Amino acid sequence: MRQLTHQIAIKTHGRRIYDITGEVTSWVRQSCMTTGLLTIYIQHTSASLLINENYDPDVISDLERFFARLVPDGDPLFFHTSEGPDDMPAHVRTALTQTSLSIPVIDGKAALGTWQGIFLYEHRHEHYTRRVLLHLMGE
Amino acid sequence: MRQLTHQIAIKTHGRRIYDITGEVTSWVRQSCMTTGLLTIYIQHTSASLLINENYDPDVISDLERFFARLVPDGDPLFFHTSEGPDDMPAHVRTALTQTSLSIPVIDGKAALGTWQGIFLYEHRHEHYTRRVLLHLMGE
Amino acid sequence: MRQLTHQIAIKTHGRRIYDITGEVTSWVRQSCMTTGLLTIYIQHTSASLLINENYDPDVISDLERFFARLVPDGDPLFFHTSEGPDDMPAHVRTALTQTSLSIPVIDGKAALGTWQGIFLYEHRHEHYTRRVLLHLMGE
Repeated sequence: MRQLTHQIAIKTHGRRIYDITGEVTSWVRQSCMTTGLLTIYIQHTSASLLINENYDPDVISDLERFFARLVPDGDPLFFHTSEGPDDMPAHVRTALTQTSLSIPVIDGKAALGTWQGIFLYEHRHEHYTRRVLLHLMGE
Repeated sequence: MRQLTHQIAIKTHGRRIYDITGEVTSWVRQSCMTTGLLTIYIQHTSASLLINENYDPDVISDLERFFARLVPDGDPLFFHTSEGPDDMPAHVRTALTQTSLSIPVIDGKAALGTWQGIFLYEHRHEHYTRRVLLHLMGE
Repeated sequence: MRQLTHQIAIKTHGRRIYDITGEVTSWVRQSCMTTGLLTIYIQHTSASLLINENYDPDVISDLERFFARLVPDGDPLFFHTSEGPDDMPAHVRTALTQTSLSIPVIDGKAALGTWQGIFLYEHRHEHYTRRVLLHLMGE
């Protein structure tokens, strides 16, 4: 049994759901691990992770439409406004989605379903470099 | 340290929260692992996983009532409608709940709390066979 | 490769988001593990876990404000009311946040981002003792 870690940096340019499936799965393949557990961890609180459909791009834009309505920017409910009208909504969206994802590795591959993609959800409008950690344990 | 994987197929017949606690915990017991980490992973984006109360069945039907109001079928907000009025809501519900669950194994058992059950949440109205992967690592 | 488990008991006194970062990270440090995977698991269905900003205390009070509006106590939608008007909302809030968190351990520390804290989210108004399990695997 052995383990590997890796950090990837994702440059984001505005609120959007970014597909990171390729970067994650190619790292897993290069690890030459046959069976194991992959953990994906984002070190931020205004960007998050999710697994969802990667086939029709309308799905991720509809997801964003839903979250924009559920957690509107500039909501007068919020006191934490000093970092801008999209900052507290970003923390709420992070709480409603994921900071870590766990995916089994089987036959040398992250065992995603046919239509599943791995996404980084940037909740802020500015440009950022987001750090995502990958951890793999197995053999 | 060793690891085991297993796939279970759950037949769903309509939108509902299905208790899969028995299938998961009996597989863990049969593994004869004393201490470890159990990962449960669903390979779909319109069905998800959750841990919640398994004692009063009103809890899971109230959960469904809440999600039906929060993410209504046929919402005109959505563009991804070609697969039916319940498809995009299913992706949103999946984003709001879990695709993977991690549970420590202690004394040979998944360390669920007294009232915790493991559930598959089918978000679509049709019948499906849903694939859930179990991964166990420990000794 | 080795593993360790630990249980912490958190006394809560009313609905609030409690910072448990110190208790968790000091246990990880004492384990003397350099690289590994930390899993945090809460054995309850009316209290949950989340990772969010731990710098400005307005963030976690705004999070509570958001959830109080999204899932109001005493909502006539709910049938499961015998345990009080805050009980079913507590189960919904748990479904919308996390029962488990996975965090890589790198260089002997849980690899939290600069502004990330680990929180127990108590959703009920009464006083409770909440059990949180820590599991660490690595070397």
